[in-house]
Amino acid sequence: MEKLWRRNVRDIDPYVPGEQSKEQNIVKINANENPYPPSPQVQKAINDFNCGKLRFYPDANATDFKTAVAEFYELEAENVFLGNGSDDVLALAFQAFFNSDLPIAFPDITYSFYPVWCRLFEIPFKTFPLGSDFRINPEDYRAESGGVVIPNPNAPTSLGEGKAFIEKLMDYNRDCIVIIDEAYVDFGGYSSAELVKKYDNLLVTGSFSKSRSLAGMRIGYALGSKELIGILEAVKNSYNSYTVSSIAMAAGTAAIKDKEYFYTTVAKVITTRERVKTELEALGFEVLDSQTNFLFATHGKYSMRDYFEWLKGQKVFIRYFNLPRIDNYVRITVGTNEEMDIFLAKTREYIDFINTK
Amino acid sequence: MEKLWRRNVRDIDPYVPGEQSKEQNIVKINANENPYPPSPQVQKAINDFNCGKLRFYPDANATDFKTAVAEFYELEAENVFLGNGSDDVLALAFQAFFNSDLPIAFPDITYSFYPVWCRLFEIPFKTFPLGSDFRINPEDYRAESGGVVIPNPNAPTSLGEGKAFIEKLMDYNRDCIVIIDEAYVDFGGYSSAELVKKYDNLLVTGSFSKSRSLAGMRIGYALGSKELIGILEAVKNSYNSYTVSSIAMAAGTAAIKDKEYFYTTVAKVITTRERVKTELEALGFEVLDSQTNFLFATHGKYSMRDYFEWLKGQKVFIRYFNLPRIDNYVRITVGTNEEMDIFLAKTREYIDFINTK
Repeated sequence: MEKLWRRNVRDIDPYVPGEQSKEQNIVKINANENPYPPSPQVQKAINDFNCGKLRFYPDANATDFKTAVAEFYELEAENVFLGNGSDDVLALAFQAFFNSDLPIAFPDITYSFYPVWCRLFEIPFKTFPLGSDFRINPEDYRAESGGVVIPNPNAPTSLGEGKAFIEKLMDYNRDCIVIIDEAYVDFGGYSSAELVKKYDNLLVTGSFSKSRSLAGMRIGYALGSKELIGILEAVKNSYNSYTVSSIAMAAGTAAIKDKEYFYTTVAKVITTRERVKTELEALGFEVLDSQTNFLFATHGKYSMRDYFEWLKGQKVFIRYFNLPRIDNYVRITVGTNEEMDIFLAKTREYIDFINTK
Repeated sequence: MEKLWRRNVRDIDPYVPGEQSKEQNIVKINANENPYPPSPQVQKAINDFNCGKLRFYPDANATDFKTAVAEFYELEAENVFLGNGSDDVLALAFQAFFNSDLPIAFPDITYSFYPVWCRLFEIPFKTFPLGSDFRINPEDYRAESGGVVIPNPNAPTSLGEGKAFIEKLMDYNRDCIVIIDEAYVDFGGYSSAELVKKYDNLLVTGSFSKSRSLAGMRIGYALGSKELIGILEAVKNSYNSYTVSSIAMAAGTAAIKDKEYFYTTVAKVITTRERVKTELEALGFEVLDSQTNFLFATHGKYSMRDYFEWLKGQKVFIRYFNLPRIDNYVRITVGTNEEMDIFLAKTREYIDFINTK
């Protein structure tokens, strides 16, 4: 019998989540996770958490957590929106702010979820190709559009842009909302957080998953004018009033208040990144100037796809994208020094293996 | 200067979250929260939680948690979908399954988010009035529609329907997807979970917020055929791949495995509910036969709005809806025996106060 109910089902591309190996003794540098645990203050906040409180709904206004985030960025609590990971925040922002008949604009090589959300929410979009140096050309974004999304630093290129670039972008886009996605900014990028006081059509989004080692807790945020934040709150409240759990609020508040641990951890990742970049270059790799917790690299002599597959066989998991323009690149998350030593040793082994074949 | 970017902002009704008094010594029986803490196994799971794990993204397949939920309902893990509260699950299900030009159908008096999601996702809908006894007439749902949503038990009426009703509904609606929202079912209602093996177009949704005392943790679920669950997963993965945090999975798994605590807590709420119902009836209230953790009540002699306001002045917070047909009713969450004794004493005081005025 034909199942007529299938007519009403949303037409969607099936998605297969990335590989999450359950194997032990692997080097997992494929998901841009932080190699260090979250702040000890997070462990303390969770250990001290009174579970009796869980019978209540979370504070819908998230007052304490918003205040702590606002303090970090020298803003007001009313400039802060919180969500269930930055994907949740970005998806809501797309729904809230991209309601034009004109297409929104973003780079051709960027975070893979942007076109997915556009299709899901029926938002028209156009992409502008990155330059041959993988940089974003701000002049592309002069044309009128329904909105702009720029990841800064960009992924998977790892390249970041500075204040002058962002100000130019804002100058060119006074009549639409501009989202700067700063998932990776803490590893040396320029944060536009300070500009939300200047531009009321600027939304800056961020994540606790990378620099604050809380990928498993699901915390994202947006910073913007009180007007933009108020609109995001209204859309969120039409969808699910309580997206951030009480325990995530407690953990997130502890994490953002521990500035010393944050700066120390970020500095360690940056130091390791620069060392690995130098060593890869010594092996003949071209490595882009990363402002993130990963490296984007290629090699003139070797197939990056084969290299990626070979490393996987050696229990070293990096990331390869079979996509136009970047199909001979790999993305390598910065792990601990020990993990990166294994990765580098295996990389040398691969080169020897290929050269003696 | 006119802000042209405002043209692109989504047009949405501003939403004001419900009252959350920060006052001490209040009786808060207005949000259908459980008066008892979650299972001690939840406290243990959280105390034992290794925060080092939080640097990783959660298990995208939520294997352990899905398996535990499936075991409780005697289903397979592939019949289980998990989300960030049942509002998240329901909102995704509306997007996934209600893509017809025909309106979806639900009762006129029901969960207030259904029409909100329809407007947000541009889903046409029609409502069928409850009978004068506030019951749902299954014959209304015979007409062809784009989908059906029935909360069972219904809120705020507290009334539940049995297996025969659900089977009739499924029989009338073979060509669209039927969602049964079971947020309150554990307090004595009939669960359609067993029917997902029989009807591949049936989705049953539920919540850990009420019967498992985890409102602050944000856990909801859906049970359905493998096909429906697969579609929900695909839509979720187009939106935000990781909606349930690692710690919510640990807490939820601990909660659903502790069956003894669950049945004991639910029984205590039911016992208190029946006692309060009897006492209210002795005071002349009409109280509907609740299968939930709240009572829906009215009184022939008194204004329920005035009664609600007066109680608020006495620090007893119940719920009043200024809505057609139910604007002389109140909704009273079942609290502890001590809380309900205060509520009943204040109710008697109110009656004395009115009668001696």
